[in-house]
Amino acid sequence: MMRYPEHADPVITLTAGPVNAYPEVLRGLGRTVLYDYDPAFQLLYEKVVDKAQKAMRLSNKPVILHGEPVLGLEAAAASLISPDDVVLNLASGVYGKGFGYWAKRYSPHLLEIEVPYNEAIDPQAVADMLKAHPEITVVSVCHHDTPSGTINPIDAIGALVSAHGAYLIVDAVSSFGGMKTHPEDCKADIYVTGPNKCLGAPPGLTMMGVSERAWAKMKANPLAPRASMLSIVDWENAWSRDKPFPFTPSVSEINGLDVALDLYLNEGPEAVWARHALTAKAMRAGVTAMGLSVWAASDSIASPTTTAVRTPDGVDEKALRQAARARYGVVFSSGRGETLGKLTRIGHMGPTAQPIYAIAALTALGGAMNAAGRKLAIGKGIEAALAVIDADA
Amino acid sequence: MMRYPEHADPVITLTAGPVNAYPEVLRGLGRTVLYDYDPAFQLLYEKVVDKAQKAMRLSNKPVILHGEPVLGLEAAAASLISPDDVVLNLASGVYGKGFGYWAKRYSPHLLEIEVPYNEAIDPQAVADMLKAHPEITVVSVCHHDTPSGTINPIDAIGALVSAHGAYLIVDAVSSFGGMKTHPEDCKADIYVTGPNKCLGAPPGLTMMGVSERAWAKMKANPLAPRASMLSIVDWENAWSRDKPFPFTPSVSEINGLDVALDLYLNEGPEAVWARHALTAKAMRAGVTAMGLSVWAASDSIASPTTTAVRTPDGVDEKALRQAARARYGVVFSSGRGETLGKLTRIGHMGPTAQPIYAIAALTALGGAMNAAGRKLAIGKGIEAALAVIDADA
Amino acid sequence: MMRYPEHADPVITLTAGPVNAYPEVLRGLGRTVLYDYDPAFQLLYEKVVDKAQKAMRLSNKPVILHGEPVLGLEAAAASLISPDDVVLNLASGVYGKGFGYWAKRYSPHLLEIEVPYNEAIDPQAVADMLKAHPEITVVSVCHHDTPSGTINPIDAIGALVSAHGAYLIVDAVSSFGGMKTHPEDCKADIYVTGPNKCLGAPPGLTMMGVSERAWAKMKANPLAPRASMLSIVDWENAWSRDKPFPFTPSVSEINGLDVALDLYLNEGPEAVWARHALTAKAMRAGVTAMGLSVWAASDSIASPTTTAVRTPDGVDEKALRQAARARYGVVFSSGRGETLGKLTRIGHMGPTAQPIYAIAALTALGGAMNAAGRKLAIGKGIEAALAVIDADA
Amino acid sequence: MMRYPEHADPVITLTAGPVNAYPEVLRGLGRTVLYDYDPAFQLLYEKVVDKAQKAMRLSNKPVILHGEPVLGLEAAAASLISPDDVVLNLASGVYGKGFGYWAKRYSPHLLEIEVPYNEAIDPQAVADMLKAHPEITVVSVCHHDTPSGTINPIDAIGALVSAHGAYLIVDAVSSFGGMKTHPEDCKADIYVTGPNKCLGAPPGLTMMGVSERAWAKMKANPLAPRASMLSIVDWENAWSRDKPFPFTPSVSEINGLDVALDLYLNEGPEAVWARHALTAKAMRAGVTAMGLSVWAASDSIASPTTTAVRTPDGVDEKALRQAARARYGVVFSSGRGETLGKLTRIGHMGPTAQPIYAIAALTALGGAMNAAGRKLAIGKGIEAALAVIDADA
Repeated sequence: MMRYPEHADPVITLTAGPVNAYPEVLRGLGRTVLYDYDPAFQLLYEKVVDKAQKAMRLSNKPVILHGEPVLGLEAAAASLISPDDVVLNLASGVYGKGFGYWAKRYSPHLLEIEVPYNEAIDPQAVADMLKAHPEITVVSVCHHDTPSGTINPIDAIGALVSAHGAYLIVDAVSSFGGMKTHPEDCKADIYVTGPNKCLGAPPGLTMMGVSERAWAKMKANPLAPRASMLSIVDWENAWSRDKPFPFTPSVSEINGLDVALDLYLNEGPEAVWARHALTAKAMRAGVTAMGLSVWAASDSIASPTTTAVRTPDGVDEKALRQAARARYGVVFSSGRGETLGKLTRIGHMGPTAQPIYAIAALTALGGAMNAAGRKLAIGKGIEAALAVIDADA
Repeated sequence: MMRYPEHADPVITLTAGPVNAYPEVLRGLGRTVLYDYDPAFQLLYEKVVDKAQKAMRLSNKPVILHGEPVLGLEAAAASLISPDDVVLNLASGVYGKGFGYWAKRYSPHLLEIEVPYNEAIDPQAVADMLKAHPEITVVSVCHHDTPSGTINPIDAIGALVSAHGAYLIVDAVSSFGGMKTHPEDCKADIYVTGPNKCLGAPPGLTMMGVSERAWAKMKANPLAPRASMLSIVDWENAWSRDKPFPFTPSVSEINGLDVALDLYLNEGPEAVWARHALTAKAMRAGVTAMGLSVWAASDSIASPTTTAVRTPDGVDEKALRQAARARYGVVFSSGRGETLGKLTRIGHMGPTAQPIYAIAALTALGGAMNAAGRKLAIGKGIEAALAVIDADA
Repeated sequence: MMRYPEHADPVITLTAGPVNAYPEVLRGLGRTVLYDYDPAFQLLYEKVVDKAQKAMRLSNKPVILHGEPVLGLEAAAASLISPDDVVLNLASGVYGKGFGYWAKRYSPHLLEIEVPYNEAIDPQAVADMLKAHPEITVVSVCHHDTPSGTINPIDAIGALVSAHGAYLIVDAVSSFGGMKTHPEDCKADIYVTGPNKCLGAPPGLTMMGVSERAWAKMKANPLAPRASMLSIVDWENAWSRDKPFPFTPSVSEINGLDVALDLYLNEGPEAVWARHALTAKAMRAGVTAMGLSVWAASDSIASPTTTAVRTPDGVDEKALRQAARARYGVVFSSGRGETLGKLTRIGHMGPTAQPIYAIAALTALGGAMNAAGRKLAIGKGIEAALAVIDADA
Repeated sequence: MMRYPEHADPVITLTAGPVNAYPEVLRGLGRTVLYDYDPAFQLLYEKVVDKAQKAMRLSNKPVILHGEPVLGLEAAAASLISPDDVVLNLASGVYGKGFGYWAKRYSPHLLEIEVPYNEAIDPQAVADMLKAHPEITVVSVCHHDTPSGTINPIDAIGALVSAHGAYLIVDAVSSFGGMKTHPEDCKADIYVTGPNKCLGAPPGLTMMGVSERAWAKMKANPLAPRASMLSIVDWENAWSRDKPFPFTPSVSEINGLDVALDLYLNEGPEAVWARHALTAKAMRAGVTAMGLSVWAASDSIASPTTTAVRTPDGVDEKALRQAARARYGVVFSSGRGETLGKLTRIGHMGPTAQPIYAIAALTALGGAMNAAGRKLAIGKGIEAALAVIDADA
C-alpha cells in the first residue's frame, strides 16, 4: 500500500533545491505587486540590492538577473568570455563540467582540469596549469558541485587565479548563504548565486557579484549580449531608484528575496552557516554509522548544504527515493548526469538546514533501504547523528 | 503638501502593467515550494499547461518560458528567424517597432510597414506588401501596442499571412486575457503572452502558443538557441509530467499562474473581456467629456485594456502622473520611447478592469490636470463614464 | 442585467465594518500558529499588548479579549456593574441605547438620556443629570454610534463624570484608530475598542483600556465573571510572558493585530486620523452637492469614520444598496434597528479611509439613486468632493 | 550553549494544540475580509456550516460559535443545564473534572464518577450510576481528556445515557477530526469541538452539534443566555444566508475553517484518522522501546491524537521540554493541573499527524532525557517506531 500518493504534496522536502521557502518568504511573495516604475518599487529594489550587497559582503553593487541562476551562469559565459579568451574550466562534477560547454560556445580555447566526481580540485593542479599556460585569461569553477555534494577550495583557487591575472567565474549557487563564501573572499570576477537554495526563497532570480574589472571587460566586449535576456551589462545601473529597468523585473520574486535577505541578515550569517554545517555533519555521522557511505571522498570536501549518499550495489536508486516519499512522505534528490543512479542527495538548505531534519532524513533513507532489502542499523545511525548534535549543544 | 509619499505604496495602481495581482493569485504565490522533480509538482505543471491550453484555445500544448514575455519575444526571434528569412515587421508603435531590432539580429532581410503611432496597421497594406514581396517568409506584429494603447487587426492580418504561406509572430502580451484573441484565431505561428497583464498575475513568465510548423522550423534551425535561457525547443516536452525540465522552473510563478488561469476560466473569458471593454469604454467617454482626447486615432482601434490619453500642450506629463500619485494615491503609466511625454496611460487589466476604477482614474487624472492649471469638466467626465456603465447595466 | 453576482466578491467594500483588512494584516494572519505556551508566542503576546498600550496611549496595560468587541461591551457590563450601582446610560443611537439593556441585566437602577438618533449627547444635559442624581455611580456612552454615523463628545462628558466620581464605560469600537480618541483623554474606566474597524484587521478580538480603579471595582465584585468567556479579571495578568492564559488565545488574530498596530504606529496616528477625516469630509461635501443629505444633524457631529446618508423619501434603501453592489461592485452598510431603511452608511475605515474611495462611493451611490429613479447631480458631487480633497492637498 | 533561543520560532511544534495550521489554511486566513452582511459572505457562511455538517455527519445544522471551544463548553453548560437538572459528570482527567465546575454553576445537583487520570470511564460504572440515580437528567463526558492523552468510550456511554433518557454533553475538542467520532455516533445532545486541534486550523471558533431535543430544552430554558456571547440559541438560524448574525462573526476564522474542512473532506476522513492513529501507534512503540512509559494505563485507551509520556522519577519535566526546544527546536506540551509535571505530551494533530514526526519527537524526547541524565535506548525507540510505520506500509 502506498501511503503518500504522488499527486499530493509530500510531508518534508529535503532536496538539493528547490526546497520549500521560509514561511516568511512565502508570505512575502504575496505582497502587493507594484508597478515597476512606481517610486516605492524603485526604492524597494534599491534596498534589496543593498541588502544583497551586505549579505554578499561586496564593495560594489551586485546584479539581480530575472531568471534562476542558470541564467546567471549562461550570461556570465556570454558576457565575459570573448573568442580570444583562453578558458581554464575546473570540473569536479556535473555542474563544473557543464560550464565548459557554455564557455566553449564563446571561445574555442578551452582547457580543463577534471577530477573524479567525488573529489575536489587541488589548488596545486591549478597552480601548475596556470604556470604551464600563461595564456589563460579566464578560469571557471563550481564551488559546490551539487550533483556530487562536494566543495571546491575556491578561496585558494581564487588567490592563484588573481595572482595569475586571469578572470575568475564562480558558480556558488548552492553554497552561498549556507557556508562562509563571498565573492571577494575568492576574488571572483563574476560570482553567481541565487535565492533558491540556502536563502530559502523560490527559484526565479540570479544574484551576481561582478568585479570592477569584469564590468570593464564586459562593457568592452562587443559580443556581450545587450538588449537581451542574457545581458548583464544592461542591468549595470538598474539597482538605482533613479534608473529604469531594461525590462520588467520579477516583482514578486524581488518581494520574496527582500524577506529572505532580512531573515539571513537578522539571524546572522554565522548562525545560519552553523546550522547548515551541523545538520550536514550529523547527517554524515548517521549515514556512516548506519552502514552506508558518503559519496564525497573525504569529510573535508563534503558539502554542508547537501549530503550525497552512495547507492549500495544492487539497489535501484530511483525506487529508493520513491519508497522514501511513498512510505514517509520525505523527498530526496537524485544524482544528475554521471552521478544519476549512483547516489541520493539530501539537502540541508535554508529552512531545512536544521539538525532535526537530519534525523528525519536518516530514518526515511534507512526505511527506504529496508524496503529495498538492505537492513541497516538505523538506530545506530540516529544515535550517531544525535551524538553530533548534542556535542554541539 | 504631498499626501502620498513616494516611499509608501500608492492606493490604486492603474498602470499598463505590472498591475497588482488578484488577491487569490497573491495567496497562490505563497503555496509550498515543491521540488521540481517531485511528482506532485510535475503533475501540477502539466495541469497548468493544460489550463493555459484551454485559456488560449489551442489545439496543441503551449510553452511556458521562465522569464517575463520579453524573453518570449526575444526567444521567438532567435528561434524562428534564420538568416535566410525575409521578415516583414509591422510597426504601429514602440513595441512593434522594437521587435524589428530583434528580427534584424537574426536576419538581415527586414521589411517594415510603419504607421503613425496613434494608428493601426491596415490589412490592405499588408496584402499589398505581401503581393509585392513574395519572398517574405516571416511577418511579425504587435497586437496591442501598449505604449500607444492601440490595437492592430491581427485576425485579418493573420489570414493574409497564412494565405501567403509566411510564418506569423504575434506579440499579444497585453491583450490576451482582456479581449477576444487567441493564437489560432489569428493563425499565429508563435503567439507570445504572459500572466502579468490581463490575467492579473505577477511578471516572471511567458506563455507561448507555437504552431506545429513553427516547431518544425525551429527544430530544423541549427541556430535556434539550445541549452540556453533563450531556447524554446528545449521546452517542447517539458509540459509532460514524465519529462524533465531543461532547468529549474519558477515554481512560485507557476503556482500563481495556476490560480490566475482558474480565475480566468471560472469567471468565464467572455465575462472577463466584457469588463475590460466596458471599463475602457467608460474611460474613453469620460476622457472626452472632460475635455481631453484619447491618443488612438479612432475609437475602433482603442485598446480595451489600456487607455492612452493625449497630453495637452504645455502640460508636463511626468508632473501630471506625480500629482495623481501624490494627491490621490493613483498611479498611471507614462508613454514609452516616442510616446513618452505625449500621453498618459491608464490600464484596465485583470483586477483593475472594473468600471468603478475608470471613475477613480478620471477623477485622479482630472484632479492632476487641475493641479497643472488645466481646469477640466471633471463632473461631466464622470457623468459620461457613468452613463456608459449604466447603459450596459 | 446584474453585473456583479451576489455569490462573487464585490470590487470594493465601503461598509461600516467589517471592512477588508490591510494587505499586510491579511498576510500577518497567515503566520505560523505557535503553541500558546511557547515562549516565542508569550513574548509576542506581551509585545502586542505593549503596542496596543502605545496606540491607546495608556499608562497601564490594556486587556485583549478573544471575541469581537461586543464581547468586550458585555463583559464590561457584567464585570463593572453590580446590583447596587446606579447607571446613567447615554443614548444617541441604536448602539448607545443597546448598552442600556446590558446594563440593566446587572443593575436594576438605570437612568437614561436619550436624544434623537441624528443628534449627539449634550454635555450640559449630562451635567444636569449628574447634579440631579448624585447617586449615579456608572455612566455609559457610545462614542461613535455607528448606525447613525454620529459622534458624542466623550472627552467633555468624561470630565464631568470624573468630577462626579462615577465610573465611565465608553464604547469606542468604531472611532478609535480613525480619529483622536484615547481612554485617558476621556477619563474612561473601561474603554472598549477592537482591531476590526479603523485598525483594518478582521473581527475577532476586543482591545480594552481599564483604569486602576475599574480593576479594583471588578476584582471586588463577587458577581464579576470568572472562569468564563465573559471574564475580564481572568485576563488581568495574561499580558505577561510569564503568566498563563485563562484559555487558548486566538493566535492568528493576535498575529493580525500585531501587524495592524505596527501599521498604525508607523504611519503615525495623526496621519491616519487625517485621512479618515478628509475622506469623510469629501464624502459629505459630495453628498450635499449631489442633492442628498447627511443623516447627522450637523457637520460637527458627523463621524470621520462613517458617513450616513439619509434615504430620500420613496426610495427603497435595501434596493439602493443592492443596485450599488450589482451595478458597480460597491458595498455599503444599511442602518440598524431604528435607523434601518432610513439611511445608507459609507465606511471610511482603515484601508478604505482614502479620499479616492469617497469618489467611488459617491459615484456608486449616485448611480444607484439614478437606478431608483432619483436623478442626482453626480458630477457636481464629485467636483465638490474633489474640491475638498484638493483644498487639503 | 542554547541553540534555539526562546524568542525565535521553534522548528517543529508537536504540542497538543494549538498546533501549526495546514499551509492551505494559513493562506485561507488571508482571504479578503468581506462585510458580514454581504451576500457573498452569507453564502460562504452557509456553505461552511454545510461542510461542517458533512464532516460531523450530522442530520441537522451544526452551530459555529465565535470563540475557541472553551466558549462552546461554557455555553453548553449555561444553556442546557437548568437548576432542576441532575448532572452526572464523568471525570477521567483534568478537563472532564473541570466541566463539573461549570455544571455546578448552573445546577446544584452534581454527581460524579471519577477515575484515576490515567484510566478511562468504564461504561458499566455509568450504567450502575444511572440505575442508582434515575433522577439524572444530564450526563457530561470528555472524549479525549487531553491533559492525560486518554480516550473515553463515548459511543458506549452515549447508548446508555440515551436509553436512560438523559441529555449528553460531549467534549470532543481534541478528538474530532483525528479519529472516528461524530455527535450522532455517541448520541450526543451537545457535542463540542473546534477547528484548532485535528482539523489543523487556528484557535478562535467552536463547532457544535446540537440535537433537536437539546434545541428544545435550551429554547425552553429561560436562564439560557440570550443577547450574549455565551448564547447558543441566538445562533440557531445564523447558518442561513437569509438570516442575520447575532453579532459580527470572526470572518477570517471562518475563511480558515472553510479551507480546513475542504482539506479534511478531500483527503477523506478515514485517511486522516489513519495517519493520526499510525503516528500515535509508532510514537507509543518508540516510547516503550526507548525505556519510557506511556501515561495511559493501557494501549486501548491511549489517544491517537496525543501521546502522554510519563516523566521518569527525578526528572524535571519543565526542564525536559525546555531542553527539547533549546537543543532540537521541538516543542511539546506539559500536563495540566493534576498531570502537570507528571507527563509530557506529544500531539499528533492535523498537519503534525504524520509518522515521520513521531521519529522527530522520539529523538527530541530521547535527547532531552539524555540531557537530563537519563540515558535511553533512543536507537531502539526509533527502530520500534519505524517497524510500526513499515508494518502499515
